[in-house]
Amino acid sequence: MYLATYEVDQKFGTKYHERFKKFYQHLQRNDLIAGIAMTDVKGDRSLRPSEQADPDLYLHMVEEKEDGIVVRGAKAHQTGALNCHYTVVMPTRAMGPEDRDYAVAFSVPMSSPGLIHVYGRQFSDTRKMEECGFDTGNSLYGMQETLLIFDNVFVPWENVYLYKEYEFAERISGLLGSHHRCSYGGCKTGVSDVLIGAAALLAQYNGVAKASHVRSKITEMITLAETLYGCGLASAYEGHKTSAGNYMNDFLLANVCKLNVARITNQIGQLALDIAGGLVTTLPSERDFRSPEVGKFLEKYLKGVKEVPTEHRMRVFRLIENLMFGGGAGGYVVESIHGAGSPEAQKTMIPRESNLNHKISAAKRIAGIKE
Amino acid sequence: MYLATYEVDQKFGTKYHERFKKFYQHLQRNDLIAGIAMTDVKGDRSLRPSEQADPDLYLHMVEEKEDGIVVRGAKAHQTGALNCHYTVVMPTRAMGPEDRDYAVAFSVPMSSPGLIHVYGRQFSDTRKMEECGFDTGNSLYGMQETLLIFDNVFVPWENVYLYKEYEFAERISGLLGSHHRCSYGGCKTGVSDVLIGAAALLAQYNGVAKASHVRSKITEMITLAETLYGCGLASAYEGHKTSAGNYMNDFLLANVCKLNVARITNQIGQLALDIAGGLVTTLPSERDFRSPEVGKFLEKYLKGVKEVPTEHRMRVFRLIENLMFGGGAGGYVVESIHGAGSPEAQKTMIPRESNLNHKISAAKRIAGIKE
Amino acid sequence: MYLATYEVDQKFGTKYHERFKKFYQHLQRNDLIAGIAMTDVKGDRSLRPSEQADPDLYLHMVEEKEDGIVVRGAKAHQTGALNCHYTVVMPTRAMGPEDRDYAVAFSVPMSSPGLIHVYGRQFSDTRKMEECGFDTGNSLYGMQETLLIFDNVFVPWENVYLYKEYEFAERISGLLGSHHRCSYGGCKTGVSDVLIGAAALLAQYNGVAKASHVRSKITEMITLAETLYGCGLASAYEGHKTSAGNYMNDFLLANVCKLNVARITNQIGQLALDIAGGLVTTLPSERDFRSPEVGKFLEKYLKGVKEVPTEHRMRVFRLIENLMFGGGAGGYVVESIHGAGSPEAQKTMIPRESNLNHKISAAKRIAGIKE
Amino acid sequence: MYLATYEVDQKFGTKYHERFKKFYQHLQRNDLIAGIAMTDVKGDRSLRPSEQADPDLYLHMVEEKEDGIVVRGAKAHQTGALNCHYTVVMPTRAMGPEDRDYAVAFSVPMSSPGLIHVYGRQFSDTRKMEECGFDTGNSLYGMQETLLIFDNVFVPWENVYLYKEYEFAERISGLLGSHHRCSYGGCKTGVSDVLIGAAALLAQYNGVAKASHVRSKITEMITLAETLYGCGLASAYEGHKTSAGNYMNDFLLANVCKLNVARITNQIGQLALDIAGGLVTTLPSERDFRSPEVGKFLEKYLKGVKEVPTEHRMRVFRLIENLMFGGGAGGYVVESIHGAGSPEAQKTMIPRESNLNHKISAAKRIAGIKE
Repeated sequence: MYLATYEVDQKFGTKYHERFKKFYQHLQRNDLIAGIAMTDVKGDRSLRPSEQADPDLYLHMVEEKEDGIVVRGAKAHQTGALNCHYTVVMPTRAMGPEDRDYAVAFSVPMSSPGLIHVYGRQFSDTRKMEECGFDTGNSLYGMQETLLIFDNVFVPWENVYLYKEYEFAERISGLLGSHHRCSYGGCKTGVSDVLIGAAALLAQYNGVAKASHVRSKITEMITLAETLYGCGLASAYEGHKTSAGNYMNDFLLANVCKLNVARITNQIGQLALDIAGGLVTTLPSERDFRSPEVGKFLEKYLKGVKEVPTEHRMRVFRLIENLMFGGGAGGYVVESIHGAGSPEAQKTMIPRESNLNHKISAAKRIAGIKE
Repeated sequence: MYLATYEVDQKFGTKYHERFKKFYQHLQRNDLIAGIAMTDVKGDRSLRPSEQADPDLYLHMVEEKEDGIVVRGAKAHQTGALNCHYTVVMPTRAMGPEDRDYAVAFSVPMSSPGLIHVYGRQFSDTRKMEECGFDTGNSLYGMQETLLIFDNVFVPWENVYLYKEYEFAERISGLLGSHHRCSYGGCKTGVSDVLIGAAALLAQYNGVAKASHVRSKITEMITLAETLYGCGLASAYEGHKTSAGNYMNDFLLANVCKLNVARITNQIGQLALDIAGGLVTTLPSERDFRSPEVGKFLEKYLKGVKEVPTEHRMRVFRLIENLMFGGGAGGYVVESIHGAGSPEAQKTMIPRESNLNHKISAAKRIAGIKE
Repeated sequence: MYLATYEVDQKFGTKYHERFKKFYQHLQRNDLIAGIAMTDVKGDRSLRPSEQADPDLYLHMVEEKEDGIVVRGAKAHQTGALNCHYTVVMPTRAMGPEDRDYAVAFSVPMSSPGLIHVYGRQFSDTRKMEECGFDTGNSLYGMQETLLIFDNVFVPWENVYLYKEYEFAERISGLLGSHHRCSYGGCKTGVSDVLIGAAALLAQYNGVAKASHVRSKITEMITLAETLYGCGLASAYEGHKTSAGNYMNDFLLANVCKLNVARITNQIGQLALDIAGGLVTTLPSERDFRSPEVGKFLEKYLKGVKEVPTEHRMRVFRLIENLMFGGGAGGYVVESIHGAGSPEAQKTMIPRESNLNHKISAAKRIAGIKE
Repeated sequence: MYLATYEVDQKFGTKYHERFKKFYQHLQRNDLIAGIAMTDVKGDRSLRPSEQADPDLYLHMVEEKEDGIVVRGAKAHQTGALNCHYTVVMPTRAMGPEDRDYAVAFSVPMSSPGLIHVYGRQFSDTRKMEECGFDTGNSLYGMQETLLIFDNVFVPWENVYLYKEYEFAERISGLLGSHHRCSYGGCKTGVSDVLIGAAALLAQYNGVAKASHVRSKITEMITLAETLYGCGLASAYEGHKTSAGNYMNDFLLANVCKLNVARITNQIGQLALDIAGGLVTTLPSERDFRSPEVGKFLEKYLKGVKEVPTEHRMRVFRLIENLMFGGGAGGYVVESIHGAGSPEAQKTMIPRESNLNHKISAAKRIAGIKE
């Protein structure tokens, strides 16, 4: 985005650029965390921002004041937004002249009047409120998304970075997308590694770690995960320093990385489910496991190999359940598809960033076609 | 199984066959529902039943009495077992002479002393206990699995259909498996149809039903679902009447059908998630939607096309969530993999049932190899 | 087509129907073979027949005479046409009123004046003319396609079955397509079986038939082939007797069958290549194998397991080469994609034949949506 | 290999290392080209080198002389070997003490007495000898493989780099494999780019370049190709300088890269065939196109969009045929599977190079398992 603002400078002067630079310096203080809010709620997807029945279905400027602007709208799927001090708001798509009031980028503190979070439900969310320990499947980590509503929020001019310059809306979302999509090659590989470890561990607990089909599936899971990692690394390594002074990764490879995440992550998950077995979905509750009546039966009948406590085995089933169907599944399964832009967004960028004419020329040359 | 008992007859006389026939006639009374319990809990998968550290990890006969037998063990993943009057118990795998006490098939009423159900947790199970209406995603149907424990259950001789005839254990499980695996071509296609409908409906609500990529994905979902249906139909149509008088479907196609279910069902689901969008995992709760404070914001910002009430759209998101991550996901996603036998069970049957030597002969003939 | 002509009757009277019926009876004589010519050469695919720069790029009536019509155009990819006595010509697509001269169906003997075959090149075609025996890879069978040109061919009225009734053009091509697409479930499964046999045989010759990865790949090949077979069977079994007296298979399943052929056949082939090894492409010629100078080296170094003659092993490599890259690959690999209509043709039919509204209704009912 | 010889030094002294270094310097002369010969012909794959019925089925030392050694055996699939001045020979697999005579690495000039090339057949190879111009499909490039037979070839000591040190055989083949497998991410992406260009060009010539399904397939082809490229880049960028002074790329990512090539390249090819259409396999010959009798008909009926000469369109069909079934298909389709080691070789390396225990530990930590 810094690059985009630099480009804005070339045309409109340095005001936004300088402001944004100042904001970044501000953020580099250790005690501030900022999120980035991009995805509008979008209403009818066949209509542009300015064509919606309700003009607020994309966030926009509703009033211009002497000391700043007032904005209204909502940003969906804001992962971790509740934990941030600030949010940086950007346009979510290309815009035309008629959408100019929607072409705004700015930052606001989360405590701004009119800023409302509505916490989304997660899969099996209320297990976190149960008294028991391991039915959530993840003893350490969680995440959350909110719908972030801007109900007439005031933003002082000094925090406005893009204002009605609609022609930069697409570029800004593309630049952020490129970083975000590249980062998925690390993020989802990391979670995948946990899932691979869980599947391999459960195979040990079930006594099948050395079965050829299990080893083959673990190898496949690793291959798939490293493919994502490789694409992310390649996009980053192929980055270059821009004239604005920041670094920009490779667009094409970033989009390829994310599109692969959308298709491959779930294949890794399916292999984990295949190795694990049906208890992922039929395992009795920890409360039953702890109960004086049936606990002893579960201790006895849910046992795998004799060296491993039944509880260990149950915990791994719950971890896999968490990542594929529970608290972690939103971030792993659904976000792998839609996070950092849905697959169709990548499919729009990929042909644009690859030099198809160059490939056609090579084909003509080799086929001996002379025009 | 009726066929298997007939085969047993050929060798051991008609006692089991006649009993089983009587039991079937018994079941044909309209007021009785019977389930079939096959999958043992299995403990260490690298060991045979008789080799387990705890001999009860496969269900077996523990005492022979004058009027019947006493059995101990547990059967996992018993879908709908709580709704049955009877359960018919069968061996889960091939057995050798050393496993003869494990080679038992019988029926018992669910009210038998010593029969214990431990209800499994389902994904997002406690939503069913919330006061609200649509957060479960399915207003009409549900299912449940129990771990069915046989804590010294007595079975009178007249209900015992297989007893120590270990050489029939594999055949019985194969016969039941063949019916069960074929039926998945209908079962999972039916659920897939609901999911296809939900995705198509949400595409309408989102205003993208006519986008070429959406239409292409719907077509793909239908193609995948009908592939499963076609394999199931083919297995059934290729069935034949056995000498015992019942009908047996085609083994090879039944196993191919189920293995395809294990691989294809989830592809259909991924396409549904792709079409639906990220709200599958970040949608706020119905309680918030009904709340006086934020309900109006959700009404406004979760709106799709203007003709459709926001609540309709939310309900479809919850239905997709149900089938992929909630109460229906155990039966759709996990059961598609492990129900009616895990993929490796089908992969064991498929080469056995296909005539590989015939294919090799054809290759030799065409390659002009003369031996 | 018979059904279509019956439908035509309903509207136009029985003239075409009766003629066509007579023709069929004619064909039932044992000594006559008829092909069906459907695919026009099509020129610019973005234009309708009547819009092409050259009006002959779809076959059409160019002159109406008292005793019949004169047609011009060309039909591509005519498999086995050279071996037929007759060809039955049909329209290849839906047509509008402006295309009425293109809406013709008729039969002509292959010896008709003006009918020209141009034989297509096949992969490695000239190996058939070499003196050696096994480099073609197939000692028994072959096929051929011609471009069939109608350079002002006269057709007497009695052999004209559709004439300017453009509104039936789509239905006729759909009806034939349905039979053709269903038949691919048998045809390509048969060839796949040969390829599976060849791969299994080569695994034996290479000494790896019992390796777990080889067995797993063979199982996968069988699963894929039987999936195609199952879809074809299901379409046929779900057929019904029409009011015209003939039988019509299930449209939806026929199209699903063919689309699966287009995607799965080559997966089978890739597994065969994986099992076989690199000699599929680097194997020296039979002439070298027979030569006094280097033959002994090839005999020695191309040996697999010691019990099998080197020539046997070479012959299997050549068979696999034939099916994947040689004389059989046109029919197996390319025809699996484009034969009986290209994949996009099936993708057009599938949503049309499946009842999407029924699926949407089911989703609404379960989601509790009341309108 | 230089690294491996360095490791050898650590144990055995510097003799091999110094020799090999000298050889590399020798090769750096501009006028010398060296190939690397690794793959033995292998005979019965279930037996080790020393267990084969014919001891020559892996290349080995057959005589030790005062001034050098005599070797016998054969190396298969030697791409470009005929164009090299030298070949560097290495072991193809791990070896044990009983295989010590097979643990040899050395270099020899191609003109060495006893060195015999047997040229392999390629698909459609004899088209190159026809008088016509474009039926080969590639007007510029070709490749060739030979079976390289060592019929008692003498190697002076100064060119021997590994001798009976069987414990390094696996490491040497792994090191070379790592470079080779990484390079496939560039090599096969380059050829894929030509094929993508050819498909896009043919879509233009057919008038369908703007059809949504064509654009979607081109995007998919690019995504697949760039995935391979990304994996290759990542392996290279993650390389490190070794203590021997050379650079070594990342083993794990190199193997992942190659395994993806084996699976993805052909998917790209299938999409090209889908876009192209059936003329890839039924196109008449250039000789017919040039003939006075039927040439005019081909000119007329093989025309696509009106602006493009028929010959241009035919040439692109031939180029696609070349890459998928002709002179280029050995290098593109088969070599993508088996070049740089068959898929099973990568599947052996991948789990070994990934830290599975680390993943298991992460799973345990998150599941709250304490031992």
